[in-house]
Amino acid sequence: MNLKSALLTDLYQLTMAQGYWQLGRAEQEVVFQLTFRKNPFGGNFTVNCGLANAIEYLAELHFTMEELDYLGDLTDANGKALFQQAFLKYLQNLRFTCDVDAIPEGNVVFPQQPLLRLKGPLLQCQLLETPLINLINFASVVATKAAYMCLAAENDPVIEFGLRRAQGPNGGMTATRSAFIGGCDSTSNVLAGKVYGIPVKGTQAHSWIMSYSDELTAFREFVRISDNTILLVDTYDTLHGVKNAIIVGKELQQQGRNLLGIRLDSGDLLMLSRQTREMLDQAGFTATKILASGDLDAVKIAKLKAEKAPIDAWGVGTKLTTSYDQPSLDAIYKLLAIKIDGQWQYKMKISNAAAKTTLPGIQQVRRYYHQQNFIKDVIYDEELGISDALPAPADQCEDLAVPIFRAGKLIYQSPALVDMQNYCRHQVRAFNQSKITHYKVELEPQLQRVIDQLN
Amino acid sequence: MNLKSALLTDLYQLTMAQGYWQLGRAEQEVVFQLTFRKNPFGGNFTVNCGLANAIEYLAELHFTMEELDYLGDLTDANGKALFQQAFLKYLQNLRFTCDVDAIPEGNVVFPQQPLLRLKGPLLQCQLLETPLINLINFASVVATKAAYMCLAAENDPVIEFGLRRAQGPNGGMTATRSAFIGGCDSTSNVLAGKVYGIPVKGTQAHSWIMSYSDELTAFREFVRISDNTILLVDTYDTLHGVKNAIIVGKELQQQGRNLLGIRLDSGDLLMLSRQTREMLDQAGFTATKILASGDLDAVKIAKLKAEKAPIDAWGVGTKLTTSYDQPSLDAIYKLLAIKIDGQWQYKMKISNAAAKTTLPGIQQVRRYYHQQNFIKDVIYDEELGISDALPAPADQCEDLAVPIFRAGKLIYQSPALVDMQNYCRHQVRAFNQSKITHYKVELEPQLQRVIDQLN
Repeated sequence: MNLKSALLTDLYQLTMAQGYWQLGRAEQEVVFQLTFRKNPFGGNFTVNCGLANAIEYLAELHFTMEELDYLGDLTDANGKALFQQAFLKYLQNLRFTCDVDAIPEGNVVFPQQPLLRLKGPLLQCQLLETPLINLINFASVVATKAAYMCLAAENDPVIEFGLRRAQGPNGGMTATRSAFIGGCDSTSNVLAGKVYGIPVKGTQAHSWIMSYSDELTAFREFVRISDNTILLVDTYDTLHGVKNAIIVGKELQQQGRNLLGIRLDSGDLLMLSRQTREMLDQAGFTATKILASGDLDAVKIAKLKAEKAPIDAWGVGTKLTTSYDQPSLDAIYKLLAIKIDGQWQYKMKISNAAAKTTLPGIQQVRRYYHQQNFIKDVIYDEELGISDALPAPADQCEDLAVPIFRAGKLIYQSPALVDMQNYCRHQVRAFNQSKITHYKVELEPQLQRVIDQLN
Repeated sequence: MNLKSALLTDLYQLTMAQGYWQLGRAEQEVVFQLTFRKNPFGGNFTVNCGLANAIEYLAELHFTMEELDYLGDLTDANGKALFQQAFLKYLQNLRFTCDVDAIPEGNVVFPQQPLLRLKGPLLQCQLLETPLINLINFASVVATKAAYMCLAAENDPVIEFGLRRAQGPNGGMTATRSAFIGGCDSTSNVLAGKVYGIPVKGTQAHSWIMSYSDELTAFREFVRISDNTILLVDTYDTLHGVKNAIIVGKELQQQGRNLLGIRLDSGDLLMLSRQTREMLDQAGFTATKILASGDLDAVKIAKLKAEKAPIDAWGVGTKLTTSYDQPSLDAIYKLLAIKIDGQWQYKMKISNAAAKTTLPGIQQVRRYYHQQNFIKDVIYDEELGISDALPAPADQCEDLAVPIFRAGKLIYQSPALVDMQNYCRHQVRAFNQSKITHYKVELEPQLQRVIDQLN
């Protein structure tokens, strides 16, 4: 199954595309923009992610003969062919020719901002709605979730091991990549290690313990074959497991080795981590770390940190890789402008539901900083422009969206994953240090006037 | 990226595998079982799904040289190779040789039941934990969500169009396939149409409307190029949109054509559907259908049905394809038995958290029916057996798990997707008609005695 297929879209994109083509509008120049409506998790920022996958999809956009044959065979309820042969011929020759501007991955972004903007032929821009949302929406919500978890963990390592309960194999792959960009230290996902170069980590499973007659034997056998002396203690009874781990720890000491860690995977993690720490310290294992896991989310981590639970590293799974408490960002992709007789006409969807209203224009975001703290963002229209003056107390500004494609040609090179992670950590910390509950995202006055006129 | 890669697993599966291999236990015979802990969504049943993908993964299991090279390059914190060359050689020759029994896709299942069971060498069974959970957990939760939505819609067509906000491209593909098995009528996802043969459907997007100077023109142009005369009316103002649709409907009548439908996509769907129905009926469009969409979930659909909203078909997206209110089933895969000196030893994980305790044995489920109504399920151990007597008032029974692989050889042919859907609809209706809030899943007495002894 080719997941970069041009058919990875909704049927109506193709039927509308044929409509535009029939009506001679296929090449009409338009601007579409991908954005989102609300920060997830009741939080105050979002991390942008998924651009590299979107770039790959766009760069390879084409229809294979097999795909066109499938479309040619589709019929409506009356048995009439859904697509005309001449239109399929048009699709056969279709290549991506748009301009794309986008905010690089790992940046802190806010609702209504242009995560990705296409300028080009109406038919192409329309077709790409579904795959672009698919590729950016999920990646961004997971990167955001990871950033919130890492903030909660206050610089402790956060290890992602949620592949098993992710939404399918590439749900897991995208989640691992996005979680790393969002700040996670490492992953259990070996394929993501290979494909993305993300550090891989792991301890042991309950099945290892259960495959022996008793836990102590299982621990002893494990340290015989592994230098990664982190022991999972909750298979039968957690504190008894800690005792067994300490016995093995002493045996390790006699061999000149160390008990690296204890992993707690269930139960009351505050109480258990305190008792475990005490037992370890009393036995002289003050350097042995405690790794906690088991349905951890940002809120639970923050609570445990606030209660000073002696936990050194955090393993997160399902809650991260499915973005459990909000598994979708609610990203949208809307028509913002259309060129008629050489003039841009700006477009707004004005829904009965105010939250579903979209902003028009050819948008860019300017971010203002004061000593690296976030001051405010201003969304402006590239045709209408923005004043170059720095509003007090800003001492610096940058435009967030950068050119990605020009006339279908890729002119952007994605940074290395670890650089995206560093950038993301830097931006998240800078925003967090700015201590802003409701960050100001303003509309540039000329753009605001256009909106007022359209409303 | 090969999503069927043997590396689609957690690192600890591979390090434990090496451990078993070093300790001479790689080929020790064991039983592992995939099950889940709780019906999702606070509901009273679950739909089993994802087996075909699991079969494909198992049948193709092998390590490529490139994958082994990657593993060979991995090092621990001290720079020591994580994997021995002799072990990688072992992996190079590894092929799947287990027995697999599983409950076919589309069946109604309950917590603790053996969705899939592996019997075979410890090393293989351990390695496969992560991919098997990944492939079955997500598929099952989406099929279950679809079944709940279809029940709520009381036989109205439910159309899935959630690709855009699914968790990545194959999150979307798996969701579409699972939703179809769970009872959805059709999908917007064209690639799933091609790959799985699922019927594809679609209407039009807001961008079509917005690409014209006004809504009426957009509608007129749309029906010029499409026989699928379903009009999306909420781009600017829903009821004004209905008025415009009626104008176009009358023009269609003059051409001997019909206005097939109105699509409501936002706002108060009860109020809007009632007013739309009234406006359509008054204008003589009694046969024109109303399709509703916009953040619909099973609960919202059930509420609208209870209030007799005049809605004929339901479009569901994000809430279905991400299984929004519970994006993971909490499936687990545990060691249940291990053969030592030719004798099976049964194993249980007895966690501090009671919900995390697992049942031991080589399990099968027998389901008892009375006039096709569900009576009860009994989980029994295949070695210990079960009485063949039918408990009153049962008049029929079946064993749910069927043989899939024997000694690594695939001996099962998955039914056609539409047959799985029919079977699922039948089972869901039969269970629903049985009107059981808490369905009885009993443990066969001899198995219960084993559990009591292990506890």
